[in-house]
Amino acid sequence: MSTTRAIRRFTGDSIPTEDLAQILFAASRAPSGSNRQPWRMLILRDGPKAVAAKRLLGEAFRAAWSAKRAVDGYDRGSGIVEDTPKARTARAMQHFVDHFEQTPVVILACLKRYRAANPGEGSSVYPAVQNLLVAARVLGYGGVITGWHAEVEPELRELLGVPPDVAIHATIPLGRPMGSHGPVRRRPLQELVYEDAWGEAATWAVDPPGTAYTQAGPPRATPPPAPA
Amino acid sequence: MSTTRAIRRFTGDSIPTEDLAQILFAASRAPSGSNRQPWRMLILRDGPKAVAAKRLLGEAFRAAWSAKRAVDGYDRGSGIVEDTPKARTARAMQHFVDHFEQTPVVILACLKRYRAANPGEGSSVYPAVQNLLVAARVLGYGGVITGWHAEVEPELRELLGVPPDVAIHATIPLGRPMGSHGPVRRRPLQELVYEDAWGEAATWAVDPPGTAYTQAGPPRATPPPAPA
Repeated sequence: MSTTRAIRRFTGDSIPTEDLAQILFAASRAPSGSNRQPWRMLILRDGPKAVAAKRLLGEAFRAAWSAKRAVDGYDRGSGIVEDTPKARTARAMQHFVDHFEQTPVVILACLKRYRAANPGEGSSVYPAVQNLLVAARVLGYGGVITGWHAEVEPELRELLGVPPDVAIHATIPLGRPMGSHGPVRRRPLQELVYEDAWGEAATWAVDPPGTAYTQAGPPRATPPPAPA
Repeated sequence: MSTTRAIRRFTGDSIPTEDLAQILFAASRAPSGSNRQPWRMLILRDGPKAVAAKRLLGEAFRAAWSAKRAVDGYDRGSGIVEDTPKARTARAMQHFVDHFEQTPVVILACLKRYRAANPGEGSSVYPAVQNLLVAARVLGYGGVITGWHAEVEPELRELLGVPPDVAIHATIPLGRPMGSHGPVRRRPLQELVYEDAWGEAATWAVDPPGTAYTQAGPPRATPPPAPA
């Protein structure tokens, strides 16, 4: 878990079906409401529809990243200074969307709804998604949870025959990472965990020594190092 | 993962804060949209508000189980035959809700909303919840994802000071399991995984030998054994 980070650059290696089966078995061990297991994983590899779907998704991902790049200011401030975290993220994202069609495996995490759409329904699909990502990491693969299929969802549903009562909850590209997995960076646990009441510190909830933080953390008392 | 099942019967053992910190650190390794980490875990142990909250939740859980017991027919058919799966489930659930107040740790998995409530928002909280449950299992603890706080949510929010823009996405009782973890039972992978299009079999997606299935599976060609 502690080295399972978002992976967006893949080598050309495919994923053997034996490994995929193991990864999906891990997903299937996850809990779901009343053990209904309403999630379904739709695997896109090299089949005729898979290739067409990857093309559609590639367009959607390029459009979504292009919009995010502008909105989040990746071409301003430290985004235009070489080797800042912002610039590195922008480069990785651009590579990701430009090569989307070459992603070895794309998984659509779907939910067969048995109730009207509601904010809690993810409890029966994302635990399986997280097991999938951790199991992939164990076997040396990586991926990332995205929602960028939204841009082309009507066309995608028609192409793949996804019924109206099924929600596509995530698009997960999966493959062998190019380069290393790198550290997972998060906020300090002290910001994420409360005890006894909202906002009350859980003093014992501390990260192990050497934990790497996001720029969002650690708290302001300890400012992040200035960019070089 | 393969032995992380829902646990609803706990010994009286408390969970040392060192273990809780490890479990929450694992949760914090999970991904979230744009790495915003909008989830917060509110831990209820033995503080004054925690005790009051457990009492409120205990009432809510007993009411919710009582309703489910009636609606799902746990007191009809095989539910009244001793030692059928249905009867065993009913007994475990009754024990669970009757002893809720003694649960060593109750965790409220919350989401600080940064967008209007939507069906996909669980992608930023349930991956952390699943990491938490798997990490708890590694240390010999167990728990279960429930949504039964709903019954008393207004009172609970007031007691704990949970702000209006925060959703309570799950209530997770956690403790040392009474008895064994038992097998995880799910549907056969063939029912959960498709390839290239909705409903198309992924022939390679097969469970390892010896996998235990729910009564919902395996498919009808192999009926489950008749109750004794």
